[in-house]
Amino acid sequence: MHLVTPVILAIDIGGTKLASGLVAVNGELLTHQTRATPVTNDAEVLWNSLTDLVDSVTAEAPAYLGVGVGCGGPMRWPSGEVSPVNIPGWREFPLLNRLRARYAGDRPIDIHNDAIALAVAEHRWGAGRGIRNMLGIVVSTGVGGGLILNGQRIDGASGNAGHIGHMVVEPGGEPCACGGRGCLEQIARGPAIAAHAIKLGWLGDGTGIGVAAGARDGDPAALAAFTRAGRAVGTAIASAGALCDLELVVIGGGIAQSGSIFWDPLRSAFSEHAGMEFVQRCRIVPAELGYLSGLSGAAALVLDDVL
Amino acid sequence: MHLVTPVILAIDIGGTKLASGLVAVNGELLTHQTRATPVTNDAEVLWNSLTDLVDSVTAEAPAYLGVGVGCGGPMRWPSGEVSPVNIPGWREFPLLNRLRARYAGDRPIDIHNDAIALAVAEHRWGAGRGIRNMLGIVVSTGVGGGLILNGQRIDGASGNAGHIGHMVVEPGGEPCACGGRGCLEQIARGPAIAAHAIKLGWLGDGTGIGVAAGARDGDPAALAAFTRAGRAVGTAIASAGALCDLELVVIGGGIAQSGSIFWDPLRSAFSEHAGMEFVQRCRIVPAELGYLSGLSGAAALVLDDVL
Repeated sequence: MHLVTPVILAIDIGGTKLASGLVAVNGELLTHQTRATPVTNDAEVLWNSLTDLVDSVTAEAPAYLGVGVGCGGPMRWPSGEVSPVNIPGWREFPLLNRLRARYAGDRPIDIHNDAIALAVAEHRWGAGRGIRNMLGIVVSTGVGGGLILNGQRIDGASGNAGHIGHMVVEPGGEPCACGGRGCLEQIARGPAIAAHAIKLGWLGDGTGIGVAAGARDGDPAALAAFTRAGRAVGTAIASAGALCDLELVVIGGGIAQSGSIFWDPLRSAFSEHAGMEFVQRCRIVPAELGYLSGLSGAAALVLDDVL
Repeated sequence: MHLVTPVILAIDIGGTKLASGLVAVNGELLTHQTRATPVTNDAEVLWNSLTDLVDSVTAEAPAYLGVGVGCGGPMRWPSGEVSPVNIPGWREFPLLNRLRARYAGDRPIDIHNDAIALAVAEHRWGAGRGIRNMLGIVVSTGVGGGLILNGQRIDGASGNAGHIGHMVVEPGGEPCACGGRGCLEQIARGPAIAAHAIKLGWLGDGTGIGVAAGARDGDPAALAAFTRAGRAVGTAIASAGALCDLELVVIGGGIAQSGSIFWDPLRSAFSEHAGMEFVQRCRIVPAELGYLSGLSGAAALVLDDVL
């Protein structure tokens, strides 16, 4: 393939899959490749797997304008040493510098948390087009997010703004892996929903997808676990809306695709806790970009720099 | 007095007092006057009281550069029709347009929520100098706030960003006057602290100041009410820090001046709930600007426009 349209090289690194692709400046994903993230504690095995993948993409378009990278957090930002929770082989791994040397050269390269990348993509090309104040949320293996306020991506003091998963929804509640307690993530992330359903007596498939199927079939334990998760997300959104005066919240990730078993309790809890008119007015919608939105998001991160 | 330094006309309108003054562009309050807010349901009685006050200030400096106005919320923003919770005589009162016609003419005039004004003042001249990501909080008769992120004042979709008082700290908790439930404000505002102390058996002076004195003397009911309020504020700050990645939180208002009976439980609850390193790093400090910081804040709102 020989591309004539200007493209951005996009790289998306998660605990489950690695993805790379070429994204046009209008957001269209022109080509992409994915592979499973190697299960290893060897940083170089991960790096080699990633570069094999990206090399095969860049072979199609040596003339890309810049490089955008989304990666699971946490990371040092903007310097880009990553320690993704779900990729134990990388701790303080100098991902940005390694990618810059190999793929960017003098071209712009930007990295951010994958949830921030998703928020930026939804803002530019998805459900948040034209919106100046929004929160993008991913409810999946973890719960993350990204803020756009005053029409701009909010980075925060250390590039970590948007961590709605560590807002407190049960003050004094159970300890969270982050070191705090009562965090949204430990209630609403997929594995937590499944664990809670099992605790309540769910005997079926213990994955998020399995529990979701059980909840849709009316199993009380599975339904209670999804209700608890949806309500926790809705309550956190009410708090975020009061603090940030949001027009829109966009929710992506696998759990957000579970339908009414998740969305109904989410909307109920939001309505109960959102009192002031400006909070109530906030719209809450599903993400528009799909499975590969991580690549769109990675590209969106660098777009302002290349145009 | 004849002023030769460039000044801003500042107006601060609260449920307890009206204030006006002349603020130099370096933040110095050169002159000011205050009077009690009239207790009335007549909008024009309030307006006449305010203009009497402001007229006596402008008589000293006909050459001010612009007009800054802080007022209790809520308000329509930026158009400036105000409906302050604690000033029932004004509902949808066109404060900004009336002040523009009388005092601003062609000069710039800006209005905002008084808590946002305080945050802007602390950012420019107080504890937040040089900080790019901070939250200013006022804990007083109400609980309000203002956000500075990416070095900019955050307005939100309708000028209401910063409402930390309506973040949820007791999911499913008691109904709040805002229409939601479990809000920070209904636990941490002065009258709520006093009511809670009385409910627990406090028999002394039922004002915030009285209960604070009782708490410092070791009265268990008074102490429990302050502990509950401080913990609620600390928990909300942990959530705000996770969402916004703050370097600094600055707290002003009468309740924040109560000393360790308020600050110790605040810091304890923050430490328990702030897990991720970037949240823990956030510093929480008292406001540096004093009783008349509302005037500095009002002036700060318009400063970018006049310089």
